Amino acid sequence: MKFKLALCQMKGYMEKTAAHKSAKAYIQEAAQTGANMICLPEMWNCPYSSKYFHAYAEGEDGESVRLMSELARENGVWLIGGSIPEISGDSVYNTAFVFSPQGRIMGKHRKIHLYDVDIEGGIRFVESETLSAGSKKTVVDTEFGKIGVAVCYDVRFPPLFAAMAAEGAQLILLPAAFNMTTGPAHWDLLMRARALDQQVYFAACSPARDLAAPYQAFGHSCIINPWGEYCGQADSHESILYGDIDLDYLNSVRAQLPLGRQRHPEAY
Amino acid sequence: MKFKLALCQMKGYMEKTAAHKSAKAYIQEAAQTGANMICLPEMWNCPYSSKYFHAYAEGEDGESVRLMSELARENGVWLIGGSIPEISGDSVYNTAFVFSPQGRIMGKHRKIHLYDVDIEGGIRFVESETLSAGSKKTVVDTEFGKIGVAVCYDVRFPPLFAAMAAEGAQLILLPAAFNMTTGPAHWDLLMRARALDQQVYFAACSPARDLAAPYQAFGHSCIINPWGEYCGQADSHESILYGDIDLDYLNSVRAQLPLGRQRHPEAY
Repeated sequence: MKFKLALCQMKGYMEKTAAHKSAKAYIQEAAQTGANMICLPEMWNCPYSSKYFHAYAEGEDGESVRLMSELARENGVWLIGGSIPEISGDSVYNTAFVFSPQGRIMGKHRKIHLYDVDIEGGIRFVESETLSAGSKKTVVDTEFGKIGVAVCYDVRFPPLFAAMAAEGAQLILLPAAFNMTTGPAHWDLLMRARALDQQVYFAACSPARDLAAPYQAFGHSCIINPWGEYCGQADSHESILYGDIDLDYLNSVRAQLPLGRQRHPEAY
Repeated sequence: MKFKLALCQMKGYMEKTAAHKSAKAYIQEAAQTGANMICLPEMWNCPYSSKYFHAYAEGEDGESVRLMSELARENGVWLIGGSIPEISGDSVYNTAFVFSPQGRIMGKHRKIHLYDVDIEGGIRFVESETLSAGSKKTVVDTEFGKIGVAVCYDVRFPPLFAAMAAEGAQLILLPAAFNMTTGPAHWDLLMRARALDQQVYFAACSPARDLAAPYQAFGHSCIINPWGEYCGQADSHESILYGDIDLDYLNSVRAQLPLGRQRHPEAY
């Protein structure tokens, strides 16, 4: 069983309509190139800055969700809608919607671990000042097997990924916007480690770096195989990264290095 | 609080007396260079092959344990005695003894996850044919704070390291003999990931590569800081790798990126 994944490393826009137009073009190109599943970056329809999240937020009946549903259906692809600010009651979440090729919402992941950090000489970002945290993991059934979805800072919490893999996820998608402090330091290491430790395909989709934007994303979207190797990696510019997700290969890795049945949790 | 760690990347010997002589010289040199804590490689007193483990095994009153105790005391250092085959009843374990500067056994880690793998075109090794598995994690109190000890293949099971860190380990030592299949593929990635995920110092001590030995070790002993960076890394040859373990730096990393209080296990 093999299928083609595409990560759209699009840049962000101040205008939501410009982001919509760009997403549409990216998704059409990826689908025409043969992608069965397409992923957008974190906060693709909103500048990545706490001060914009409320103003750009939409409910499940909002125009960005409607657009993504239409694009999934028109192009006949699974769409992991990066993330957008989602409003629900008084709360705004950093949410990745997952759409079937029929355009239906099959899952949504609200970022569980908010990005509250303060690094000397680096970045200060306190997402929890404006966002609320999700409270559950997200695993979705597809005709290509189960996929897991998490968002950005979630990646620093390995038990979330262990739990998704235990539930059967064979591919985990992570819309993520690392910055120029943590990106060069940790991006590659974290993405490869999550793939290798859980013996899954792991795909991280970043916005392109845009020197004019309020937030400098690291870029470097990547697809890692269950042996911890790159299927592909983008640079910092706008691009689409394609990778073949080969579940037979995944099974052969797990047969050769059978971590799943060698665990001894009773000893920890 | 700062202290100096030394990893002795010694090669193995067919003769146990030659291994003893080499360990003594390594430990003396490291202590004279100012090391407060010294680590030996996995199975340092025994060729790394299932067929030798029983013949070389000793009890807690054996000559290798006695020698390590004397060397710790004479040199006034903490000694993590790599690992040796340890016999207890009918069972042989892959065991790392930990000695205080007074020469007392303060802990011992019996490798929990035995190395049973069969990689296409690579290595086949079935440790459980001859060894028994340990059943608990190992955290030891020192005047430099708590340290954790694990052995080689244990490194592929992240929850063990999360549990050691949760118990207060700030430095984790891993005597380990990766091979020429898994070493180039995974050594760096695993060691750096364990350090970064748990925000601990992580030190992996390998035997030197010896083309004449029954098992080709990868070498590349390394000390990683809690930000996931190398304090130092050896090549494949015999050497001593030194690193400063700086617990103030560790605390500053945890203050800037407070993963410990951002976990949401209830969501997984």
